[in-house]
Amino acid sequence: MQTPHILNKYRSAIDAELKSLLAPYRLPLYDMMRYHLGWIDERGKEVAEISGKALRPTLCLMSCEAAGRDYMPAMPAAAAVELIHNFSLIHDDIQDDDAERRHRPTVWKVWGKPQAINAGSAMCVLAGLSLSRARDDGLDLEKYERLLTILNRATLKLIEGQYLDIQYERTFDIDVDDYLTMIRGKTAALISCSMETGALIGTDDPVKTEQFRELGENLGIAFQIRDDILGIWGDAKATGKPKGSDIKRKKKTLPIVYALSSGSGGVKDTIVEIFQKDNIGENDAKTVFDLLFKADAYAHVQEMVRDYGEKSERLIHAIGMEQRCMDNFEQIVEFLTDRDY
Amino acid sequence: MQTPHILNKYRSAIDAELKSLLAPYRLPLYDMMRYHLGWIDERGKEVAEISGKALRPTLCLMSCEAAGRDYMPAMPAAAAVELIHNFSLIHDDIQDDDAERRHRPTVWKVWGKPQAINAGSAMCVLAGLSLSRARDDGLDLEKYERLLTILNRATLKLIEGQYLDIQYERTFDIDVDDYLTMIRGKTAALISCSMETGALIGTDDPVKTEQFRELGENLGIAFQIRDDILGIWGDAKATGKPKGSDIKRKKKTLPIVYALSSGSGGVKDTIVEIFQKDNIGENDAKTVFDLLFKADAYAHVQEMVRDYGEKSERLIHAIGMEQRCMDNFEQIVEFLTDRDY
Repeated sequence: MQTPHILNKYRSAIDAELKSLLAPYRLPLYDMMRYHLGWIDERGKEVAEISGKALRPTLCLMSCEAAGRDYMPAMPAAAAVELIHNFSLIHDDIQDDDAERRHRPTVWKVWGKPQAINAGSAMCVLAGLSLSRARDDGLDLEKYERLLTILNRATLKLIEGQYLDIQYERTFDIDVDDYLTMIRGKTAALISCSMETGALIGTDDPVKTEQFRELGENLGIAFQIRDDILGIWGDAKATGKPKGSDIKRKKKTLPIVYALSSGSGGVKDTIVEIFQKDNIGENDAKTVFDLLFKADAYAHVQEMVRDYGEKSERLIHAIGMEQRCMDNFEQIVEFLTDRDY
Repeated sequence: MQTPHILNKYRSAIDAELKSLLAPYRLPLYDMMRYHLGWIDERGKEVAEISGKALRPTLCLMSCEAAGRDYMPAMPAAAAVELIHNFSLIHDDIQDDDAERRHRPTVWKVWGKPQAINAGSAMCVLAGLSLSRARDDGLDLEKYERLLTILNRATLKLIEGQYLDIQYERTFDIDVDDYLTMIRGKTAALISCSMETGALIGTDDPVKTEQFRELGENLGIAFQIRDDILGIWGDAKATGKPKGSDIKRKKKTLPIVYALSSGSGGVKDTIVEIFQKDNIGENDAKTVFDLLFKADAYAHVQEMVRDYGEKSERLIHAIGMEQRCMDNFEQIVEFLTDRDY
C-alpha cells in the first residue's frame, strides 16, 4: 500500500504555514512545540523533518479545492486543525504515560509533565489565533465566525472523546455503539471539521459544506477503526509500534469491544480476566489474539472499515467535483481503509 | 478589610451565565467543571456555593459600565474570562501537585490527573464558545473578532507566565524584572483582558479601551504581588492557606526574589541552601522569615504594591467615568492592595 501522492502535495506548504505562524514566538515553551512537530531536537538543533501524515490539513486543503477554489485561502484553517491534532497528541502522551512517539521521546518525557501540559494548551490556543490569518488573507467576517465556532465545537468533541476513551479503561460493559460515540469525538470530529472548514472557505453553498462535513465524519471513523486493527495486527516495522501493543496497553479498541460484546461468555470472561492483570505478558497477549481469532474479530471489524469506506465513496460521488479531485479523494479512501501503517 | 460591595453586585448574574452556558453539556466531564466551580460535590449533589472572588468577571462588567453602557452585553465576555481563569487553576493544581483548593480536594485529586487535564482543556475551549453568545445578543462582528483575538492572546500570555513560573523553580538567578515578566503573563494578562473586553463592549472609543487595558495590567500586578505577600505573611484563617505556605512550597514569589537579588551575599546563600532541600521544615521556614525581615522584604514589596495601586488610581481619574463607577474602582484598588485574604 503506497502513500497516495496527494498526501505529499501540500506537505511543504503546510509546514511553511506552521513555521511562519510560530516564528514570532521565541520563548522556549514554543521550542517544545517545534520539537513535537519534528523540526528540532531536544537542544533546539534543526533536524531532518520527522513528521506525521498531515492527514487533517491535507483533507482541509483538498476540500477547499474540491469545493471550487484554490487551496491557499484554506491554509490558516489547515494549520489550525493540525495544531489541534498535535495539542491532543501532546496531552494524550501525558495521559497515557507514553514515553515515545515517532521513535523519539515524547514532549513530557523530555520536559516533564507540568511543562508538557503548558505546551499542549498553548498549541490549542494558537490554533484559534491561526484562523485570524485567514482574516488577513481577506476571508469575510461571517465565514471567520463560522470557522471559529466549527473549530471550537470540534475541539470540545475531541476532548469529550478523549474523556470517554479514558473512562472506558475502567469498564468492560461497552458495546460497539459506545465505542462509536467515543471515536466520533476522539477522531472523527476533527477530521470532519478539517473538511467542513476547507469546504466553507471553498464555496458559499451550505449544502456542499455539509456534505464535506459528513464525508469527513465517515472517513474519520474508517480511519480510526483501521488504526485499531493496526494497533493489534499491524506490522511493527511499518507502524512503528510493537505488534499487539494495544493489547498490552489494555486499550478498548474495536476488536476487543467486538469480542467482549459478541463473543461467547467464555471469550468475554477470559479477556476481562487478562485485562484486569497489572501487566500483560506474551502468553496473555497470545491468548487474547486467539480469542479475537475465535470471535472472528478481524473480519468483522475490517468489514466495518469497508462499510464506512463505501459510504465515503458514495458521498464523494454525490458531492460532485472535478474528476481530478474525485480521484484524489478515492485514493484517500483506499489508503485509509487498507493502509498498513 | 471588608470585601468591597461591588464584588457581590454581579455575583449571581455571573453564576447564572456560567450555569446556563454549561447547561447543555451532560457528559460527566462537565460535572468536573461544576465541581471545580463550587456548585456540586464529588457525587454530583448540589452544594451551598463555595466560590472565589470572581474578580475577573466583575472587572469585566465594571469596565463595560464605566465605559458607558449597561453591563449585561458584557456577560458572555465575563463568563469567558472566568472560565479561562478556572481552566488555569485546574491545570495549575495538577502541575503543582496541590491536593486542596478552597478547602476541598482539587479536581485531579478526585478524578485523577488524566481526566483533570481534559476538564481544564475543555473549559478553555468553552471560553471561546461563550463569546459566541455575545453575538447572539447582537454584538457586531468586528467587535466579536477583536474580543476573540484579545482573549486568545491573553490566554497564550497566561500560559507563558505559567511556563516561566515553573521554569523559575529550578533557578535562583532571577531578578525583579524576570519576576515582573512572569506575573505580567500569569496574572496581569487575564485581568487586563477582562477590563479591555468589558470596555470594548461598552464603548467605541479605542483610546478609552486601551486605558482600561492598562488599568487592568496595573491592577493585575498589584493583585499578584499582594497575593505573594499573603502567601508568606498571610493569616492562615483568612487566606485558607497555612502561614508561610509559599516558603514551604519553595515558590519564587516576589519577597523571595527581592531577598535573593538585593539581600547581602549571606542572605542569598542561606535561602538557596534551604530551597535546595527536599523538604522545608519549621526551623528552615523560620530562618527564611528572619532573612526576609533582615532584607526588609515586606516593606519593599508592599511599597511596590502601593506604587502599582497609585498608578491605578491615576489611570482611573484619567479615564473619566461617572463618580459612582470611579468610587467602585477605587474600592477595588484599596481592596487589592490591602486585602488580608
